[in-house]
Order: sequence, then structure tokens, then C-alpha cells
Amino acid sequence: MTILQTNQQPAWQALEQLFNQQRGAKLPQLLADDASRAQRMVTSAAGVSIDYSRHLLTDQTLNLFEQLFEQQDWQGWRAKMFEGDIINTSEQRAVLHVALRDSYTGADASIATESAATRDAFLNFAQQIRAGEIKSHSNQAFTDVVNLGIGGSDLGPRLVCHALAQPDNGPHVHFVANLDPAEMARVLRGLNPATTLFILSSKSYSTMETQANAQAALSWLCANNSAPEAAIKAAHFCAVSNNIAAVSAWGIAIERCFTLPEWVGGRFSLWSAVGLSIAIAIGADGFKELLAGAHEMDTHFLNAPFKQNMPALMAAFGIWYTNFYGAQNHGVISYAERLRYLPDYLQQLEMESNGKCVDKQGRAISYATSPVLFGGLGTSTQHSFFQMLHQGTHLVPLDIISIDANDDHKTSAADTRSQDLLLFARAQSDALAYGINALPASLRDAWQSKPSYSHFPASRPNSRLHLTELTPKTLGALIALYEHKTFMQGVVWNVNSFDQWGVELGKVMFGAMK
Amino acid sequence: MTILQTNQQPAWQALEQLFNQQRGAKLPQLLADDASRAQRMVTSAAGVSIDYSRHLLTDQTLNLFEQLFEQQDWQGWRAKMFEGDIINTSEQRAVLHVALRDSYTGADASIATESAATRDAFLNFAQQIRAGEIKSHSNQAFTDVVNLGIGGSDLGPRLVCHALAQPDNGPHVHFVANLDPAEMARVLRGLNPATTLFILSSKSYSTMETQANAQAALSWLCANNSAPEAAIKAAHFCAVSNNIAAVSAWGIAIERCFTLPEWVGGRFSLWSAVGLSIAIAIGADGFKELLAGAHEMDTHFLNAPFKQNMPALMAAFGIWYTNFYGAQNHGVISYAERLRYLPDYLQQLEMESNGKCVDKQGRAISYATSPVLFGGLGTSTQHSFFQMLHQGTHLVPLDIISIDANDDHKTSAADTRSQDLLLFARAQSDALAYGINALPASLRDAWQSKPSYSHFPASRPNSRLHLTELTPKTLGALIALYEHKTFMQGVVWNVNSFDQWGVELGKVMFGAMK
Repeated sequence: MTILQTNQQPAWQALEQLFNQQRGAKLPQLLADDASRAQRMVTSAAGVSIDYSRHLLTDQTLNLFEQLFEQQDWQGWRAKMFEGDIINTSEQRAVLHVALRDSYTGADASIATESAATRDAFLNFAQQIRAGEIKSHSNQAFTDVVNLGIGGSDLGPRLVCHALAQPDNGPHVHFVANLDPAEMARVLRGLNPATTLFILSSKSYSTMETQANAQAALSWLCANNSAPEAAIKAAHFCAVSNNIAAVSAWGIAIERCFTLPEWVGGRFSLWSAVGLSIAIAIGADGFKELLAGAHEMDTHFLNAPFKQNMPALMAAFGIWYTNFYGAQNHGVISYAERLRYLPDYLQQLEMESNGKCVDKQGRAISYATSPVLFGGLGTSTQHSFFQMLHQGTHLVPLDIISIDANDDHKTSAADTRSQDLLLFARAQSDALAYGINALPASLRDAWQSKPSYSHFPASRPNSRLHLTELTPKTLGALIALYEHKTFMQGVVWNVNSFDQWGVELGKVMFGAMK
Repeated sequence: MTILQTNQQPAWQALEQLFNQQRGAKLPQLLADDASRAQRMVTSAAGVSIDYSRHLLTDQTLNLFEQLFEQQDWQGWRAKMFEGDIINTSEQRAVLHVALRDSYTGADASIATESAATRDAFLNFAQQIRAGEIKSHSNQAFTDVVNLGIGGSDLGPRLVCHALAQPDNGPHVHFVANLDPAEMARVLRGLNPATTLFILSSKSYSTMETQANAQAALSWLCANNSAPEAAIKAAHFCAVSNNIAAVSAWGIAIERCFTLPEWVGGRFSLWSAVGLSIAIAIGADGFKELLAGAHEMDTHFLNAPFKQNMPALMAAFGIWYTNFYGAQNHGVISYAERLRYLPDYLQQLEMESNGKCVDKQGRAISYATSPVLFGGLGTSTQHSFFQMLHQGTHLVPLDIISIDANDDHKTSAADTRSQDLLLFARAQSDALAYGINALPASLRDAWQSKPSYSHFPASRPNSRLHLTELTPKTLGALIALYEHKTFMQGVVWNVNSFDQWGVELGKVMFGAMK
């Protein structure tokens, strides 16, 4: 049977018709036509809610998207992933990061066993580091841990540690990814070589950046410790890798080399031993909460019908703008400094997964796939690129993420920064969607007489994501939400979201030049 | 006289024709047709060179762009800016950041006088802080300086300080921009309240983020110092603002309030007293080198003919992709960790300047203006979103920035990280543009038999920018290059690049909600 290209599916064609009929529809008008959409277009799971009433769509659009997803067999693919089918066909692998959070639904008992065994190993090690039971060569507790890894061995742990690490609760965790020696030099400045542990994180142990940086870290340790190199390697390094032989040959003890199941892909690996730095930063219990949050989102994704299914809906919104409105971007704005590294993480997740131009059948694709993902922090970016979001000529759909206000860093009764942050998320979301229509009448009338450079086209769509608090559990859920959104987009675009052959040529070109 | 909309200009129409004729042209073919383009399509100024041979254009394209720029009177607008004409018409202001680096060409002697006077004031203060001559309330030298500012009062200084500050040479400089109290809490952690100076940086003194953060900083200082609040304010704060009355009323001494000329816009202000944190980090001499590098680029911009004029050429490339190829993005990849904050800085510079949908005559614009700017560091992003750049469906033009390899952080003879970093910049630039055609024949032939998911469409355009070294001088030139590129795009798009009315509605909406 010939598999239809996605844009030949009946529902796709119907969406094109609908788009052509409704392309003039603006958000203020959609709200005026149906005020109940603001109440109706919300759903939530695992401590994360989404208000999607500020999108350029109606119930009819969602109905057609549900059909499109069904024509692309979203439920079938979802089941295949959770059951451990070989859905990464170009590499002949199952895709089972969900098994790391106990969401595997297949029949192979060894999956859970392997997951638990590898988890126990690195969590125990993390606890011993935190407790100061595993000591440095000079017999001191480790004060600092530096994760040496790049791409999937860096971005997830960096995001989570920045978001969740608490001061004075465990060693400080740092990250070095780049080949540029300036990055490591900057991180090592101020660290104590007598009490710093390095994690060499490279699944294959073939990542040249990480190898070179491990060597540089060793030089730094040796220059500042009188002990023999072998002893320093043994005491101040551990590894996350499946290439135990190479790790061991380099001089790291086998019992300090933590493996991950082969069915875990790099950009989905923070839930595995690649998350060792996370476990050191937030402890084994915190790590388990992170997994529990992701598991809750897995359960939602597995069970919720399309119209309540957050990952499926977010996938649909993105496809609507990418393939029908022609948007080439997707912006993520977090009103929370602790989510600073979310855009960097999502860039890999979405762009590496779905930045493909060949479908699962190996055919050239004739429709758009992954947009550029970019983002930043509110309110900082309000003073930077929001001008373009409000008054530029390009449609840039956004996710606006907020968290309930709290008193964590309140300095006085008059300190309303946390409350104001939340309010800004709401104000910008409304201003983008509805323009001056969302203002009280008195302000609105005054605005209308302003010169044209003060006019706002409005109708800029956005999802409002909200977390009641930012904890290991809700962050785990949020990350899993984006993972599954990405997977669903890949299902609709009919690409293998789990390989990355596009990174190969640059490496070979480098080798040829060297 | 009716001013033509840009897309009605004869040269624009001719470019459209050319685009339709040549849209099938691919970079490997362009190079095969004319091998000399690689040698010919290069130019340089002020320590920055550009190789633009990997763009989807020919000499004919550049000829037409030269005509378009002339039809938009690029030389006239350039002269107006440097002579101090009121080119920011919606705010009735001259745009004279170039005067801060002695590039003003007009006749008003007071411009140079004001520039020098404001410069001397903050540079002297910076030197006294660096020398420990100005002391804290407890009579100690300041060890740390925290810049409180957002948008233009943050992004430029943050970029430059990260790129140029040297360890153990002057106080450490930190930045707090966001309203989220978590940002300040993170920065203050580990700082000594007895030896920390805050810079309250807000041109108007009306920026709520900066005011709230100054208040929080004061609370932190008072909680950790027994001295009276007024004495702490006097000793541990200085300001960059033109609202001297408000600064003084808050409790900062007038002689510690540094002003900037009114003809300096926020996102062009790092050359003014807004750069106080830079001067503290790199010293007055370093700051003057930064200005000198920008001045060199100003001179190049003022004098070079179109086809050697780097800012004009870079503006043309961007317009070619934005308005003819329909690209909605522009990526900037720096193979230098020290340029980490360049994309953040450029997002404001380009998207706030040219993210407009109304032209200088107040008419709605019917062509695209500023794309989304995003970016990151090589080699880290090679392991993240490069997949999509190589094999995605969207055209994403890039600037790839590299710096000569150096031995600054070399740990051994075998440590080739810096050399490899430079090589990767070249390898990726070629791989994106030429695909497997740039491989040696033996490797190329093997590649062709691979499955379709390993195929590379290639023909992904990029500018190769190269600096022989990263110093205050070359960084000053690089920043000025992008400033003028942005200005030139605004001239062609016929927008006022110097206002930002699109940020107003969000503020008013917030006020209405509060």
C-alpha cells in the first residue's frame, strides 16, 4: 500500500480549504463571535495548564486536525512508542525514554529491569557524592561538579539544574560543552581543583569536544594537585557512557561508569544516567519527582482524547501556523528566570527531531517541517524583540509560560516583582492577541487617535502555559509535554523524529580538512 | 512628491525578475560556473573580514542591489545620520551614537563637547573604582559591580563584558535585568554586600524593572550592613540616567549620576555612560579602544563604495533572503564562547529597529521587514539545531563568525581545541553551502550511495565573518558593523529604525490590569 504524503490526506486538503475561507479571521473578532472560547479552550495535566483560546482557529479547525491526526494514525504511533516498537527505523531502534519514567506499556520485562538497574546505580552514586561519602583524592567532600558533555549530554541537565538546584544543598553543578577552551577556562576559574569532580558524559565516547575537554580538565587537575595522574583520574572523574572499555582504558574505574539503555536517544536522555548532574544537584528524591512528573504527562498523553490532549493540541497549533500560515518560527517566552535554558533545550528537541526533508518512506518532502525555535525570558525580551512580535510583518506564534507568583525572594511588603511578572505574562498575551481591544474603553478610545506608528495589528496567536509552581514534578511534566508535542509533529509530518543524519556531513568535512 | 514604496522601485522590480530567472540556481553550480567568486567576493575593514561567496547571488544581483540602495538614497541617509539630522522623526531626535566614537561629521561643535564631557565623567569614575580609590561604606575597595538595567541598558554591556573582561583585572561585573526576583537572588549569591557596587542604569528612570531591582538590592545591602540606609545608598550605588532629579531624590549623589546625550537611543547606547560597567571591567583605555574600533568601522561605512561596503552588503544579503526568498529568519553562529551574548544583543538591535509594519510616511507596509534573529555558539549548536539547518525545509541564512586560533588556554601540545574550532567554522560553512560537493572525490563518491535520509540539499547560504583576534577594537568594529547593517536595512525598507512604539501597548495593558 502506498502511504499518502501528509499533504495529500483528505483532512489536510480540508484544512487548506478552511484556511482559505478563514484566513481573514482575526483574534478580536473570533473572541467577539464566541466569548465562551476563552472558558472552553483550556486543558491541563500534571500541574501544567494551557489556555489556547488565543489561536487563529475555531472548533471546526480542531475537528479537522483531529481527523488529520487520525489519518496519520497518531494513536497507533503513540502505542508503538510506548510499547517499544522499532520506530527509529533508520537506526533500527526502539524509542523508550518513557520507560525511564515507568511509562513503558510493552511486554518485555527486561526493559523495566534495565531501567531500574541503571537508575539505581547513578542515583546511589549521586547520593554518595552529595553526602560527602565519596571523597576527593585529598579526602575532602566534593564542592563542585562539572558536567562535560555536548548536545543531548548537556542541554537537558543544564536546563533542569538551572531551574531546580538550590544553593547550599549539595555540590554546585557546572557545565562545559563547547570546544572553545574559553568556556572551560571560565567555568574552572574560582573552582577548587582539590574538590572538583568531572562527569565525562558521552554515550558513544566518540564525541571529540567532550574528549578534548576531559583531557583539558585532567591537565588542570594535575597542574594543581601533586598526586599522580592515575590517582587523580580515578578520584576526580566519573563517566556516563556505554563504551565502558574506552572509559576504562582512559583511566576511569568501571564502577564509576554509568550506562544508559541503548533505546534512549541523546536529546531524550536527561531521564537516564545523563541526568547524573541533575541527581547530584537535587538529590535522588528530587530526580524521582522529575520522573514522576514526566510519568504523569505520559499518562495524560496516552489517555486523553485529542481535544484534551496537550501534546497533540500543541503539535496541531504548530502545524497550523507552519504549514498553512507559512510561519517559519516558533517562540517560547518564559516569565521565569529559572527557565532560562528552556529555549536552548527546545531548539535541539524540536529542530533536531523534525528538521528533516525526507519522510519515513525516504521520499522528498514537499511541505514545511520544523520551524526555527527561539525564545527568551519575560520581561527582558519585552525590552528587546517584542517590538517585532507586536508590530513586525511576520507571524510568530508563541508559547508564553508563567508560574504562580510566590514570595521566595520578596524583600519587603512593597516588593511586587513576582506578582508583576505573572501579570506581564497575561498582559502581553492579551496585547499580542487582541491589541487595544483588550484595553478598558477609556484607554482604547484615546489610543485610536494616535499616529499609525502606534497602531497594533494584533491577532498574534499564543498559547498560555501556566504552572502553579516550578518543582521537579512540574518541570518533568513540562519537558515531557514538549517531547510528546515534538513526537506528534513528527507523526503528522511523517518524519523519523529520532535520528539526526544531518549532523554527519559537517563532521566528515572537518575530518577531511584536518 | 509621493515617495515610492520600496517594492515599487525599479530596482526592486528588476530584482524580482532576476529572482524568478535564477531561483533554481544552487551554490555548488554558482561556484562551478565561476570559481573566481571565492576570491572576488571578499572585503574587510577594521579587523573584520567577510567572505560572501556562499550567497545565492551573482554580480548581476549585486549590481541591482546597488541600484536599489541608490534609489532608496542610502548615501543621503548615511550622511544625514552622521551629520545629526533629525532622522528619528516620530520622536524628533537626531541619531548620533556615532558621535560617541568621534564619527560625527556635522557642524555643531557642542556635539563633540557633550560627548567628551559625559565620556570623561564616567571613565574617570570607572578608573577610580578599578583603582580602589572610591571605596565602599566599610572603606574597602569594591570587588563586584552589578549593573541593574534592562534592554539597551543591559544587552550591550553584557555582551562586551562577557567578551572582554579579564579575570583578576578589576572588579567582577555582573548583570541583573529581569523583573523575576530569582535573577537577582542568583547573582547576589556569593557576593559580599560590603564590597558590592550597584549601577542603576535607566535613561528615563521610569523603567519599573530597574527601579524594583534597585530597591531589592538596597534591601540586601541594608540586611547585611549595619550602616544607615542613606549612607549605604550614597556609598554603594551610582546611576546612569538623564533624570538627575529622580536619581538624586532616591538618594544617589549627583556626582555619581552619569548622563548620556539625548541623541543616543537605548539599543545604541553601550558607547555612552550606559557602558560604565564595560569601563569598570576593561578600564578606560580598553573602552577607548572599543570606541576606536567602532570609529574605524564608521569610517569604512562612510567611505567605502557599495560593493566593498560591509554594512551595506550585509543589509543587501538579508533583504535578498527576506523579501525575495521569503526567509523569516537570520541565524548568527559564533565560533567563540566569548561572543555568547551576541545573538541576544542582535535580537534587540535588528528586531526592535526594523520589526515595523508602517513606513516613514505612516503607510502600511506590504513587504516583509525584520526577520527573527537567533543564534548560538559553534560547536555546541552543531549538536543541537544544525540538523535543521542542513536538512530542514526552511532556508535559514547564516552569519558564521570565527576568530583566528590562539594558544590562550592551551593545556598541552596535543590540545588543538582552538584550531579545531576555527576548522569547524569553515567545515560547516562549506558543508551548508556545497554539501558533499566540497568533499574530496573519494569521500563524495561513497556518500552518494547512502540512503536518502543521508542526503544533503546543500545550497544553504552563509556569510563567513572572520576576526584575526577578539579585542576591544575588533569587537567595537563588529558591533558597529551590525549597527550600520541594521540602519541600511531600515533605509531600504523605509522604516524608522530608531523608535519602538510597539513596546507601549504591553506596558499600558499591564497598568490597566494592575
